[in-house]
Amino acid sequence: MSMQLCRVDVADFDRVLTQINDPYERCRAFSALTRVNVLYMIMRAGSGHLGSSFSAADIVSHLLLSELDEPFTPDGDVYFSSKGHDAPGLYAALIGLRRLPEDLLHRLRRLGGLPGHPDVHTPHMAFNTGSLGMGISKAKGLILADRLLGRSRRVFVLTGDGELQEGQNWEALASAAHRGMGELTVIVDHNKLQSDTWVSEVNDLGDLEAKFSAFGWGALRCDGHDFRDLEAALRKRAESFPGQPAVVIADTVKGAGCATFAATSMRPGEWRYRFHSGAPSPEDYRTAHEELIAEADAVLRRNGLGPLRVVAEGPLPERRAGDRPRLFQVYGEALAGRARTDRRIVALDADLVLDTGLIPFSREHADRFFEFGIAEQDMVSAAGGLAAGGLVPFVNSFSCFLHARPNEQIYNNATEGRKVIYVGALAGLLPAGPGHSHQAVRDVAALSAVPGLRVLQPANAAEVEAALDHCLATDRSVYLRLESVPVPDEVAALPAGPLVPGRGRVVRQGGRVVVIGAGPTVLGQVLGACELLAPEGLDPTVVNLPWLNEVDPEWLTGLLREADHVIVVENHYGRGGQADTVARALLAAPPPHRPSFHGIGLTEIPRCGADDEALGAHGLDAASLAAAIRDVTTSDLTIRDVTTRDLTIPTRD
Amino acid sequence: MSMQLCRVDVADFDRVLTQINDPYERCRAFSALTRVNVLYMIMRAGSGHLGSSFSAADIVSHLLLSELDEPFTPDGDVYFSSKGHDAPGLYAALIGLRRLPEDLLHRLRRLGGLPGHPDVHTPHMAFNTGSLGMGISKAKGLILADRLLGRSRRVFVLTGDGELQEGQNWEALASAAHRGMGELTVIVDHNKLQSDTWVSEVNDLGDLEAKFSAFGWGALRCDGHDFRDLEAALRKRAESFPGQPAVVIADTVKGAGCATFAATSMRPGEWRYRFHSGAPSPEDYRTAHEELIAEADAVLRRNGLGPLRVVAEGPLPERRAGDRPRLFQVYGEALAGRARTDRRIVALDADLVLDTGLIPFSREHADRFFEFGIAEQDMVSAAGGLAAGGLVPFVNSFSCFLHARPNEQIYNNATEGRKVIYVGALAGLLPAGPGHSHQAVRDVAALSAVPGLRVLQPANAAEVEAALDHCLATDRSVYLRLESVPVPDEVAALPAGPLVPGRGRVVRQGGRVVVIGAGPTVLGQVLGACELLAPEGLDPTVVNLPWLNEVDPEWLTGLLREADHVIVVENHYGRGGQADTVARALLAAPPPHRPSFHGIGLTEIPRCGADDEALGAHGLDAASLAAAIRDVTTSDLTIRDVTTRDLTIPTRD
Repeated sequence: MSMQLCRVDVADFDRVLTQINDPYERCRAFSALTRVNVLYMIMRAGSGHLGSSFSAADIVSHLLLSELDEPFTPDGDVYFSSKGHDAPGLYAALIGLRRLPEDLLHRLRRLGGLPGHPDVHTPHMAFNTGSLGMGISKAKGLILADRLLGRSRRVFVLTGDGELQEGQNWEALASAAHRGMGELTVIVDHNKLQSDTWVSEVNDLGDLEAKFSAFGWGALRCDGHDFRDLEAALRKRAESFPGQPAVVIADTVKGAGCATFAATSMRPGEWRYRFHSGAPSPEDYRTAHEELIAEADAVLRRNGLGPLRVVAEGPLPERRAGDRPRLFQVYGEALAGRARTDRRIVALDADLVLDTGLIPFSREHADRFFEFGIAEQDMVSAAGGLAAGGLVPFVNSFSCFLHARPNEQIYNNATEGRKVIYVGALAGLLPAGPGHSHQAVRDVAALSAVPGLRVLQPANAAEVEAALDHCLATDRSVYLRLESVPVPDEVAALPAGPLVPGRGRVVRQGGRVVVIGAGPTVLGQVLGACELLAPEGLDPTVVNLPWLNEVDPEWLTGLLREADHVIVVENHYGRGGQADTVARALLAAPPPHRPSFHGIGLTEIPRCGADDEALGAHGLDAASLAAAIRDVTTSDLTIRDVTTRDLTIPTRD
Repeated sequence: MSMQLCRVDVADFDRVLTQINDPYERCRAFSALTRVNVLYMIMRAGSGHLGSSFSAADIVSHLLLSELDEPFTPDGDVYFSSKGHDAPGLYAALIGLRRLPEDLLHRLRRLGGLPGHPDVHTPHMAFNTGSLGMGISKAKGLILADRLLGRSRRVFVLTGDGELQEGQNWEALASAAHRGMGELTVIVDHNKLQSDTWVSEVNDLGDLEAKFSAFGWGALRCDGHDFRDLEAALRKRAESFPGQPAVVIADTVKGAGCATFAATSMRPGEWRYRFHSGAPSPEDYRTAHEELIAEADAVLRRNGLGPLRVVAEGPLPERRAGDRPRLFQVYGEALAGRARTDRRIVALDADLVLDTGLIPFSREHADRFFEFGIAEQDMVSAAGGLAAGGLVPFVNSFSCFLHARPNEQIYNNATEGRKVIYVGALAGLLPAGPGHSHQAVRDVAALSAVPGLRVLQPANAAEVEAALDHCLATDRSVYLRLESVPVPDEVAALPAGPLVPGRGRVVRQGGRVVVIGAGPTVLGQVLGACELLAPEGLDPTVVNLPWLNEVDPEWLTGLLREADHVIVVENHYGRGGQADTVARALLAAPPPHRPSFHGIGLTEIPRCGADDEALGAHGLDAASLAAAIRDVTTSDLTIRDVTTRDLTIPTRD
């Protein structure tokens, strides 16, 4: 029989909760069961933060089972994770407690299921997290409200250790002490590993207890996998610092509870922890699953319970090979290559070297590679300093963080006239699994009015190379918007010559309906829509316009000379992006024929789900686009511009 | 003879520099002279940071005269101020050293003169500062560049103490230690007072030395007004921490060197330091000037130099009375009033209680007023927590900081569907004296794609009241954009009824040229332009549309039924703001007549200067607008939309 994807039935959690009397053993068994189901959920989803869920599992079990007072009531103690990476672990625990429906086990990172990072639309999630460093501040706000409304309860916030590099934490600490917030306890899941590698390598935290103490917090330390020690630390927290916020620094092991995933199993010299966010290989799954089952079975048996009831849920999901390079990888290789001859190039990273393509650069040009850790504001201002010193900094992060967290710092660099290249990976709606904290769909808007900043989105590998040439040749700063999903074959094959600012390229010559867009997802789906429309005799012209905040009016006028309809499709909110740019140009120099104008982009907060689910939910898949194009061409009188609708808050489906 | 505005001639600085041999006395005399000229500059400009310039004066004198190696050469030691408030002091010192032209003494905060906060277009300004907390990061970047390029020099950064509440500092510290940056010295001008009041009241810094030490920095403390102590501390810094970044915490007195301004002269119980940023009263000027002259004279005489040469520069400038309430004051009073009956209302502030109008609220509703200090990210996320707890938070700061520093936090709150009212004072180009770090002209763009967030800009007191009613009634989050300059009489008199989202109001019924705008400055200048155009028979219709990111298509179609030309005028960059909103609506439902469309807004980084200078420089004064309207109506074939031009970096005039 082929390898099966297995989980533990929630009835086994019931047995643990009702039949194990020793509180420490109960927690231990509960954690062991949650780890089995976390592995199931992540294997099924194809991605998810395994290492972090495992390192936090014992802390979460202790809190939910032994520490919190009435955590699931409106006035009870509150627990939430600020880092949010450990969401699968918390989901598994809540399902084990029957606080979330069991069928959600199968729906991690699926539309209408459990988001990749916590979201308040899931029951018992106090806050949206995943954007690091906000949790302590949110807890403080909740406590201020509690005080005003006469509610008395405690708030526990879990943070990562790498997360503490984020400056907002240190803003938050001081005033919590200033306000004597005895209600607030922070637990640091101190597993010593952040996204890329060891925290001490990235940006050493130094003496964490001394730091918290210096900020006026009570500080304690314990073994985050020892339930007696956790209990003692939290008791001491209450006794020693009753009127003061306090931190419990819990020493943990990333991937704890399973030798396959445990960071303690890393080979000497191995710098990269392999189980931060992706799904394990089938081989690792098999080994780990057997370990986890054995461990869970053992703890059940020694507490007098019968054997574990493992439920097989069918074969392991097939993964697509994905051997085509992603654009960030193309960029990373190309940047390393350019830097061989251009000594001005330096690269800055914020703990995402794996996902921004910078490994080749960091190896080949170690002296010109600067790792800032999870500290985007510091990174961007330091890039300004590097530019002032005569270099050309390439600043890298996920787009979601890069456009927003250091937004003022980017503007400040611009006011100095520094040339800085900002490279945002993971731009756009996809991948949709991580959820809205990671789906950058308002980056163009947030940066649209930064003076002198060009926003450029390449569609394929050839265009990445051309974009890089442009970045090096221009005097301007550039925000290079890179999608991280694979490039569809039909987009990968598109030609890309030298880029001319504000000018695009017709990639499908058709009739008088002109569809304008940029990037692999939009162009892929639009070309797909054209295929769907062909049998109906609809034959749109498709234009790749990689410049998102500028358009050459002369080129546009020429392009639209005979157009009846112009449709701009965006992998972005329908406001503040390319549609606005094209609309303004169209009004400034209207073609004699005056085509109708339509913008299609996101109108809601991006949905978490499989990529095809998310595209469909937002009307950006080929079928929806075909329908929209059909609408535009067939109902001249009903001019449709979805983006004039208000952007609204999504409701949970 | 009436009171004269007086300064010290630069020749007196020459005498001090060449004829006083004792280095401590030389510094003391130099500081005394700079303080006289700082007072001159600020009185002449009508505003400027006096207290901070005075508290830092001795540190700056010591650095420039005794500590820095070749500071004015390309490879010499670098000094800059991160807080930037003390710019007048640094300017006065550089003029005293003949490193800046003496005539700039008369041009603080004037177009082409010396900006209110440091700008790299002024000689010897290493970086643009004034946005707090960026300096250490910038210094680190410069040092990384120096290391790569084989430059060996030291970098000294002055920070405020309140500034250290900003989280970016703590991001920056850790990796400076991680990289062993012995080149980097931070000096904290620890004057114990931030913008509003005592640092210890706002958000106590606790044990600063312990904090820096915990972050891996060498930490020393000294008297920032004792030149021997400063010298000893910097010597010890070099000896004790050669391969490590270090901080010298310099205990200073805000307004030091003059009893009138010194914080030590504050009366018992006086909470507000009166000389943070405005110009002193004529009475205070007279007393302080006499003190400063006496002190300078004394130090010159005791060092064997002849008496001080004081140059009278004419009478004290007249200040306009300014007795009309500013919109932020109206807002503050109104909020305090609404909170009497609406117990959900809470207010959050980031050390700007004087400038956000919150003093009445903070006094009347002390339990519902939360001062976060200079920590906007913390404040915004805490507001999310307060909203989660059932309250309606009003989050206040200067617009320049509020839209940018916590940009990701605002989005995160939006993804939770929390209702939060963000109130940005000091929005727009004016006042133009503080310079571009404080001139919020891309706030609408940066927030335009935050889902569910309305952007609303009231024009006068009545509309502030209506806006507040809307904020309390709606389920949506609102960004309330408030200008801080006085409301022109003709705008103050405009009616304001209940606000209907997306709909504006005709405030001047004219012909087929329709000018749309919002806020006191735009409406005032546009109405002024109409007066100028009247003799020519040009008679525009003027519309107040306070909704910046939405427009009701039906209303717009009705409004423009007979329009030949539509012009949107913005106190904002020409991109990402109201012109884009109107343009999209116009294209979505084009009026049958298809008017021409034009956007007028900023195309360059906002200029520092007197308000009329800045309006003129950006083409937003009545005369420029009249010319633009005339152009639009007389040259139909040359359709003009300034905002399709690239936003460019300004050149220094």
